[in-house]
Amino acid sequence: MSIFAFALGLPTLDRQGACIDCFFPAPVKSPDAALDQAIRTQFRPGAALVPPESARIFVQDSQPALAPLLEADRSLMAVLLPTDAPIASTAEAFLKLHLLSHRLAPPNTMNLEGIFTHLHTVAWTTEGAVALHELAAKQLRSRIEGRHFEVLAVDKFPKMANYVVPSGVRIADSSRIRLGAYLGEGTTVMPSGAVNFNAAALGPNMVEGRISQGVVVGEGSDLGGAASTMGTLAGGGEIKISIGRHCLIGANGGTGIPLGDRCTIEAGLYITAGSRVALINERGERTEVVKARQLANRSDLLFIRHSETGEVQCRLNRKAIALNEQLHAHN
Amino acid sequence: MSIFAFALGLPTLDRQGACIDCFFPAPVKSPDAALDQAIRTQFRPGAALVPPESARIFVQDSQPALAPLLEADRSLMAVLLPTDAPIASTAEAFLKLHLLSHRLAPPNTMNLEGIFTHLHTVAWTTEGAVALHELAAKQLRSRIEGRHFEVLAVDKFPKMANYVVPSGVRIADSSRIRLGAYLGEGTTVMPSGAVNFNAAALGPNMVEGRISQGVVVGEGSDLGGAASTMGTLAGGGEIKISIGRHCLIGANGGTGIPLGDRCTIEAGLYITAGSRVALINERGERTEVVKARQLANRSDLLFIRHSETGEVQCRLNRKAIALNEQLHAHN
Amino acid sequence: MSIFAFALGLPTLDRQGACIDCFFPAPVKSPDAALDQAIRTQFRPGAALVPPESARIFVQDSQPALAPLLEADRSLMAVLLPTDAPIASTAEAFLKLHLLSHRLAPPNTMNLEGIFTHLHTVAWTTEGAVALHELAAKQLRSRIEGRHFEVLAVDKFPKMANYVVPSGVRIADSSRIRLGAYLGEGTTVMPSGAVNFNAAALGPNMVEGRISQGVVVGEGSDLGGAASTMGTLAGGGEIKISIGRHCLIGANGGTGIPLGDRCTIEAGLYITAGSRVALINERGERTEVVKARQLANRSDLLFIRHSETGEVQCRLNRKAIALNEQLHAHN
Repeated sequence: MSIFAFALGLPTLDRQGACIDCFFPAPVKSPDAALDQAIRTQFRPGAALVPPESARIFVQDSQPALAPLLEADRSLMAVLLPTDAPIASTAEAFLKLHLLSHRLAPPNTMNLEGIFTHLHTVAWTTEGAVALHELAAKQLRSRIEGRHFEVLAVDKFPKMANYVVPSGVRIADSSRIRLGAYLGEGTTVMPSGAVNFNAAALGPNMVEGRISQGVVVGEGSDLGGAASTMGTLAGGGEIKISIGRHCLIGANGGTGIPLGDRCTIEAGLYITAGSRVALINERGERTEVVKARQLANRSDLLFIRHSETGEVQCRLNRKAIALNEQLHAHN
Repeated sequence: MSIFAFALGLPTLDRQGACIDCFFPAPVKSPDAALDQAIRTQFRPGAALVPPESARIFVQDSQPALAPLLEADRSLMAVLLPTDAPIASTAEAFLKLHLLSHRLAPPNTMNLEGIFTHLHTVAWTTEGAVALHELAAKQLRSRIEGRHFEVLAVDKFPKMANYVVPSGVRIADSSRIRLGAYLGEGTTVMPSGAVNFNAAALGPNMVEGRISQGVVVGEGSDLGGAASTMGTLAGGGEIKISIGRHCLIGANGGTGIPLGDRCTIEAGLYITAGSRVALINERGERTEVVKARQLANRSDLLFIRHSETGEVQCRLNRKAIALNEQLHAHN
Repeated sequence: MSIFAFALGLPTLDRQGACIDCFFPAPVKSPDAALDQAIRTQFRPGAALVPPESARIFVQDSQPALAPLLEADRSLMAVLLPTDAPIASTAEAFLKLHLLSHRLAPPNTMNLEGIFTHLHTVAWTTEGAVALHELAAKQLRSRIEGRHFEVLAVDKFPKMANYVVPSGVRIADSSRIRLGAYLGEGTTVMPSGAVNFNAAALGPNMVEGRISQGVVVGEGSDLGGAASTMGTLAGGGEIKISIGRHCLIGANGGTGIPLGDRCTIEAGLYITAGSRVALINERGERTEVVKARQLANRSDLLFIRHSETGEVQCRLNRKAIALNEQLHAHN
């Protein structure tokens, strides 16, 4: 069996030499036999600083796209993960985040245990990552020198777009997409959209809402402005949310249950797992009232709050079904 | 009849020479006879790269504010649009977006056909526009050189404020306002506000919500935090939304119908075109239930969801009327 | 009695010499007797430009952390506020905003009268503060020189993180937190969170919603994604909102009344002061209907909208109470 993952890149070190950030231009997951052999021969398991010169033959033979790294005037960072074990260093955390954003691993498929422990809270600035204990002095110094730099974020996670822009995506505001987000081909994230690490829009998707950690949004589904997918942290329930294919959560709506395919939640309606929902049959009759969690992962549902009675209702999503039949007819 | 529009500015070209961005400091629409004549004499219809030297006499005689352009060490971009035809090049698209943001053309008054075709998806960075096929190499190179640059967005549309800041506006976060937005005098856009291209806050307005493509918000109207104006794309209906004067959409509220003047939607309520709305008369009696779309463009309406019955109700917006009478009394 | 506040720092002046921005690395409030004496001896009340040399002895003796300021090749700004009087200059406004963000003064404890008058609307750029009347020329010049700079905001208030990053906070997007925000230890502000000036998350808090001017959020309380605290400006009521300890406002929810401790508002529900709320007793019986404003500042309340009847209900927040008892049992 091949190693789990490998990457060679450039670290940012603070003044004490601690690694606070890593950039891996071409991370590798489950390499083929030749690359696997080359990696094992050259590198040891775990994360290590290596002089560019020592990586020359490996890069030239096995990852020629990384050749510019050989010109670096400082150490490179090499990370070799033999297996998908818990995260044991900052560099390993960055490698796993890169695997997600390079579309090499979908959310919820890797062991991310230890990630919060090993990521430092760092100032992300227009001059790169700055350790917090160095920030105030640097801000004062730069003001005195008449040189301005921006503190764009203070966080454990940097923005994805400074590490990789996957093909076929549009991002209105890169500060809303963390490294570790998985954006599939054809995904557009609007200014009110946000995608956390270990969260995905598989693409194509129009994302104007928030995709929480652990949530996966399927092909052809859209999140309207400020639409919410309930996270498992911070007030969220115990259910992991996912959104199937060709769903729509309307603007300012949200879901606390996973949705199947072709589901719609109308604008402004938030379905929580405990919401009692009236099921309406095709003749428009109420047949039953169930907890929303009983509808988890079911397809072809339309959720509304009746504007006269205030009752949350669920009926078959005829429009989506019709659309789907039409789409199939054309393929 | 004069030409439709003209501009002279600076393009950003990728390495193959394709124009991916244009900056026009002083675009012109419907010029007076003298300027019109000068433009026609000097330039040909369409978009063209021109050496600064060739534009010297025109600039000195007709647009002296552009004199700094003559010092450029590379080609300028000239765009002459004889009529308001469909967009045929990237430079033309940028000119029309500039006309909107320079307040020379309100939304929905120009032919924007072809705009998505002719705008490239580009990385907008702290070093300007970068073609996506050049980005990864540039990111690697800058890391090796210890120079950081930020990828702020990946989009067809850049942010307005890097091209023009119209008078009398405040913008909390420029990444939320696309070039092509029309912000009138006295408009403040808060951090959760967003204004798309071909969308307007005519001013004065307090915008903490989202103004979708094609939507115009009238004088004195406010959008509360995360308030939504339903777009005609992505899940929206077929109705084009507009908001009249002195309206308020409360925080986390939204509308799927165009509003007249002095309308209020309470915080948290989303009115869709299909919502059934109970009309309440001045004696507090329910008189009728209508679809919200029947109330489109009507003035002096207050929309609430009754907190006891869950019924969406509409009554005359007495507070707004009173306020309005008071305002008139003082003028 | 000691002076109210003092600071020495670096101003940004426009070309006419007007102060449009001040950076104070170590502002002081209610200094001890020795420092108070040193300040009074060296500086006069109000704001004044002073040559670095003239501040040498004061800095070396009394604020050695400011020593780098002595190397500045231009004037420093000194602000001495004998009392907490209305704001009389831009520099004084900046000092009071610094006091808030340095956690030296909680919101609503200082006299901020005059702040809007004395703060200039400025372009906040990657090259620092730029006066609006200088911006267009600077944008044109930098384009000609092939140098890009970003206009990040156009506002009276800059972003806090360029002035101070208080200990123990995380900020996903610094553009959403104004100078003058008070972020306590352990506060995380997510991409949809926003904190205005004179507003606080006392910490620890998870803030994915908006904290309006004047609002204070207590220890252990969380605001879900896009949750709203109604401001006293722009459509808000007359009631000043505050959120007690261990509260949760769910995603896309909001409040127009101040909450006591351990209150929960379910996701998607907006409570306004005028909402009529049914009180439900421990046996699940409706006992009374009251206006939400009558519940202001009460603790241990759970607000929901009943999903079958649309009725807004309030019951004792048993989960929070239980949690609280458990927490106490462990301490």
